[in-house]
Amino acid sequence: MASLRTLKEEVYEANLALVRHGLVLLTWGNVSGIDRDQGLVAIKPSGVPYDDMTADDMVIVDLDGKVVEGTLKPSSDTATHLVLYNRFEGVGGVAHTHSTHGAAYAQAGRPIKILGTTQADYFADDIPCTRDMTKEEIEGAFEHETGNVIVETVGNRDPLHVPGVLLKNHAPFTWGKTAAEAVRNSVVLEEVARMGLMTAQLNPQAEMNQHLVKKHFERKHGPNAYYGQGGPN
Amino acid sequence: MASLRTLKEEVYEANLALVRHGLVLLTWGNVSGIDRDQGLVAIKPSGVPYDDMTADDMVIVDLDGKVVEGTLKPSSDTATHLVLYNRFEGVGGVAHTHSTHGAAYAQAGRPIKILGTTQADYFADDIPCTRDMTKEEIEGAFEHETGNVIVETVGNRDPLHVPGVLLKNHAPFTWGKTAAEAVRNSVVLEEVARMGLMTAQLNPQAEMNQHLVKKHFERKHGPNAYYGQGGPN
Amino acid sequence: MASLRTLKEEVYEANLALVRHGLVLLTWGNVSGIDRDQGLVAIKPSGVPYDDMTADDMVIVDLDGKVVEGTLKPSSDTATHLVLYNRFEGVGGVAHTHSTHGAAYAQAGRPIKILGTTQADYFADDIPCTRDMTKEEIEGAFEHETGNVIVETVGNRDPLHVPGVLLKNHAPFTWGKTAAEAVRNSVVLEEVARMGLMTAQLNPQAEMNQHLVKKHFERKHGPNAYYGQGGPN
Amino acid sequence: MASLRTLKEEVYEANLALVRHGLVLLTWGNVSGIDRDQGLVAIKPSGVPYDDMTADDMVIVDLDGKVVEGTLKPSSDTATHLVLYNRFEGVGGVAHTHSTHGAAYAQAGRPIKILGTTQADYFADDIPCTRDMTKEEIEGAFEHETGNVIVETVGNRDPLHVPGVLLKNHAPFTWGKTAAEAVRNSVVLEEVARMGLMTAQLNPQAEMNQHLVKKHFERKHGPNAYYGQGGPN
Repeated sequence: MASLRTLKEEVYEANLALVRHGLVLLTWGNVSGIDRDQGLVAIKPSGVPYDDMTADDMVIVDLDGKVVEGTLKPSSDTATHLVLYNRFEGVGGVAHTHSTHGAAYAQAGRPIKILGTTQADYFADDIPCTRDMTKEEIEGAFEHETGNVIVETVGNRDPLHVPGVLLKNHAPFTWGKTAAEAVRNSVVLEEVARMGLMTAQLNPQAEMNQHLVKKHFERKHGPNAYYGQGGPN
Repeated sequence: MASLRTLKEEVYEANLALVRHGLVLLTWGNVSGIDRDQGLVAIKPSGVPYDDMTADDMVIVDLDGKVVEGTLKPSSDTATHLVLYNRFEGVGGVAHTHSTHGAAYAQAGRPIKILGTTQADYFADDIPCTRDMTKEEIEGAFEHETGNVIVETVGNRDPLHVPGVLLKNHAPFTWGKTAAEAVRNSVVLEEVARMGLMTAQLNPQAEMNQHLVKKHFERKHGPNAYYGQGGPN
Repeated sequence: MASLRTLKEEVYEANLALVRHGLVLLTWGNVSGIDRDQGLVAIKPSGVPYDDMTADDMVIVDLDGKVVEGTLKPSSDTATHLVLYNRFEGVGGVAHTHSTHGAAYAQAGRPIKILGTTQADYFADDIPCTRDMTKEEIEGAFEHETGNVIVETVGNRDPLHVPGVLLKNHAPFTWGKTAAEAVRNSVVLEEVARMGLMTAQLNPQAEMNQHLVKKHFERKHGPNAYYGQGGPN
Repeated sequence: MASLRTLKEEVYEANLALVRHGLVLLTWGNVSGIDRDQGLVAIKPSGVPYDDMTADDMVIVDLDGKVVEGTLKPSSDTATHLVLYNRFEGVGGVAHTHSTHGAAYAQAGRPIKILGTTQADYFADDIPCTRDMTKEEIEGAFEHETGNVIVETVGNRDPLHVPGVLLKNHAPFTWGKTAAEAVRNSVVLEEVARMGLMTAQLNPQAEMNQHLVKKHFERKHGPNAYYGQGGPN
């Protein structure tokens, strides 16, 4: 169980990082992480203030959503997280926020177009927005269907090359190899949304050269990555 | 009198929460709370800096506005608060701020359209803006008439389903079951105003599916609410 | 000389208040205050970082700009402040900032229209923008001519009813009965500029009822003011 | 080697100043400084969190990019910095950030027009944006070519009169006589970008009188500069 302890601490720290980066108001937002060997997920409890939370409050669920450890109810978005773990193999962490600019793009139903190296350093393409959910999806297993719509939106792309989407009329979901990386991608998404809105105001026709997109993404994530002190960062 | 002491402390804390959430500049903004059994309201004193204020400075008035306890003058907006307590039965707290984005919507005379789940988690509909007040209302019992115009704007809706309005050319008023909940609704109103302005800039035609509005509002407030650790949150 | 000591401390505190309110980057901005009995003005020294400054660094000049006390050079904008003291009798303090939204209006050459009670609580009207200065004014006694253009812009209005203007392609100047009140008016100007920009984005045709303007200004500043714990605030 | 020690400390402090001024998210941004006598440059290591960094982590490279001192890899943007030192004689420090508004202008491919004295106090003209880089430049010695494009954009102008450019679809580079001054120019660039975006929203036709530009630039930087306590500031 040592690894579960570590996972709970990582997920706890990742949830606090959301707050520290100014991505969270009140109790909005949640982060989870998975231990792939055990097939167990640690996630923030539902509606608990960040200030009162401890690492022990993280709830452990299996990939079917059954609570395995913990006395609190897991996040009401747990079923969405689980779909992503079940369908995206390389993903080790998932984050959900209502960060202001990301949420505005989601409300507008617009993708965050790739217009600069800030985005290309982490996302190989536009950050897409999901389609409207149907009445049946909304009134059915809503949070599970939400996960399905995210998976549908990512489509054939490598989820780690487009590590986030905008949930229409809702807000962003991001992911990464770890819970910390999922949070980092939420930070990046919010910042490029902020830049993207201003860019559109300055020049609605702005575009980015695909050679430059590729260069920057591969500088950090390609087989010959050379940013940072080791391999890809 | 124990309950009055508690009420004053709750109202004092709620006033400080406005400041902590960045909704207040200088001495703008005020929060009140009511003890329904005694029919007494605690409210911030007028024009006193938040830093110098103590719980004891909260002024107690009855539902006709008579000062029952306290040496300072109550907020100049007291008469508006009292109309809301007299007309909205389930309301236990009222907050007024000049939060920037909410005030901008009020100055524009535009409702904050419901465009995302951030709003739908707390408001079941658009946040309406009041009509222009008449010369007679402005030159008459101005603060009392302000309350009347708010009540007129809420109309037949359940005040706890639309727990706030924009006062035209002025700023937001919000309310809730407690003073703390009224402040929380001011926080939400300011954030959805911020998101709403950006959404309009990204896509002036943005809309939200009514099924999704209903799902989110009821997830937190309906008879089968399942967000948080207990009942509705 | 006791009063000079007090004046230097008030002006020092008012300069720090500019920083605390987020209206100052680097060494931009300066506040002065006047002792009308002695005809002496205390003002921030030129280009000194706020962190290193003490009350003793405030420079005392007479109404002709002669340094009477202090080892540092006074603000390069001193001549502008002096014109305002010489021409506006009731003014006891002057503040100059490059606060972002105020500066944007000044760069746009647009007045800050009165659109809400936030402005009407402190300004009885629009906050005007000066005309372009001529080549002769710019290449002549520039800072003195800047003061003249401000006075020309205020025109026949009571300077304490319109306690600030936008200097075209530059930034705001505000004033008040004291240095602290001049700073407060800089805070209000920046906030109403921020609200004004957003209001224009939401509704370019927004307007405010003159009865409401008058009601709010007089609630705080008229002969029957009833805001705050004493008289006008 | 005493001077190298000092240089490393200055560069370390300048990197932290970027963070303190809110111009940096995550590990984005880097500052370097040069010792012209030794022809050696100190620069931030690549991808190292600011919180963990010490002055000793600054990497020393010569003007050909060879690491002379230090155990970490230098910033992946080092080659860009070196072109600027090799081509701009009077430059002693270079800074690169992804500051939000500057990056938005870079993404839009638009210069930051000179519209106010805030800009004219530090830049004698518009802040230009580079052209698109070619496929060959991007796939070749990318960071070196980036430096060449910056030099091409500055053209015949004195680099200290236009101490920064926007790198198209990327973000700002600024420079100055020292590392600290390069950072100060990044602060100014971000602020005038913020003001510029708002100015364009308020009045797309806004312009600034060239006499006023000249007056303000020379007040701080001309032979008869009179701002601050000494010479030019």
